[in-house]
Amino acid sequence: MANADAAKKAAGIRAVDFIENGMKVGLGTGSTAYWAIMEIGNRVRQGLQISAIATSVQSEELAREQQIPLLTFTAFDYLDIDIDGADEVDENLQLTKGGGGALLREKIIASASRKLIVVADEHKFVPHLGAFPLPVEVTPFGWEYTFRQLTAMSGRPKLRQKDGKTFITDNGNYIADCNFGIIKNPKSLETLLNAIPGVVENGLFVDRTNILVLGFEDGTTKILSK
Amino acid sequence: MANADAAKKAAGIRAVDFIENGMKVGLGTGSTAYWAIMEIGNRVRQGLQISAIATSVQSEELAREQQIPLLTFTAFDYLDIDIDGADEVDENLQLTKGGGGALLREKIIASASRKLIVVADEHKFVPHLGAFPLPVEVTPFGWEYTFRQLTAMSGRPKLRQKDGKTFITDNGNYIADCNFGIIKNPKSLETLLNAIPGVVENGLFVDRTNILVLGFEDGTTKILSK
Repeated sequence: MANADAAKKAAGIRAVDFIENGMKVGLGTGSTAYWAIMEIGNRVRQGLQISAIATSVQSEELAREQQIPLLTFTAFDYLDIDIDGADEVDENLQLTKGGGGALLREKIIASASRKLIVVADEHKFVPHLGAFPLPVEVTPFGWEYTFRQLTAMSGRPKLRQKDGKTFITDNGNYIADCNFGIIKNPKSLETLLNAIPGVVENGLFVDRTNILVLGFEDGTTKILSK
Repeated sequence: MANADAAKKAAGIRAVDFIENGMKVGLGTGSTAYWAIMEIGNRVRQGLQISAIATSVQSEELAREQQIPLLTFTAFDYLDIDIDGADEVDENLQLTKGGGGALLREKIIASASRKLIVVADEHKFVPHLGAFPLPVEVTPFGWEYTFRQLTAMSGRPKLRQKDGKTFITDNGNYIADCNFGIIKNPKSLETLLNAIPGVVENGLFVDRTNILVLGFEDGTTKILSK
């Protein structure tokens, strides 16, 4: 296993220690959240009793394979805990997410959870957000105009492609991968982006994270909390 | 023709006077914008040269029947003018829109236009917004949770139905018809709503209207501008 994978695996597994019997759990998306889902599957087979809801079709399929009992939104008022990855996380535990294209569902689930636990390998921990592209989910209708508005904000949007075609999110939208440079004020940028008609959501997760589980290449982990 | 229809027709037709040859025009949706589209059709057949883009599938079909040349979003940077209706409009020309379910496309088109001309019959002109339900477009994923957030904001959301089924917007989303009571601060409510993950857009159009064409039941019109 490559060392970066070791770091991801360590973080994902460690985060599952925060889950207790009877909890309602959000399942994240991406290469680190993957390990958390796999470990939840292990513990469910060992007797852990939880129910879960996934932030993407992909994670839902994985959860089903792992025989994790699944919830729908009609079945709960709030989730107890949500374990999800990040593309970047800073010292204030602000995040960018959505490299995997599931940012809208991830944000809804995070918002529905009493506690958000972010799992990330050490390379995701940065002094300032902005080196990684910031995904912005936009409606297909009028996307060309929405992109011009992102360009006017110096966001340098690129329409995400997959297998030679325009990438479509689970919600039927497009992704603009933006580059705003260093993001000095994530809260203000999040609000400005959401005010653009045509922008459905953006990958900034501001003031949402309670606990960060960082994984290191030597297999150790470190817990940071707010 | 009922008197309310006479008022709508007068406003719709009068607004078309603002269109000049060569303009790129946004076509609204609803019972008053309908008359503007019909009148644009008349003038196009009389030689007016414009191109247009519609705010809904319904208005696009009408424009096609009326042989109005249609644009796509790749064909322009900005529109010159957008003529659209409103559910309510106050003295500051702030609007609520979206009773017809096309609020997102309407807002994108309005945002892309140098000038927004609102057409409305006299009964839509109110001292304060809020008597008419405020439509909020939400993603199907997690809508139950999004509704709980709207309820927590005292929005009393109702899931819009049509023909005994959940109404689906042109963009594949649901509509929450909300009742916030009198809306004292439309700008702040618009921002708060757009900050909820799961909310795609809302029917408040704040600081967007340039000209209001009011139609009266006696067939006269009145122009208000900002």
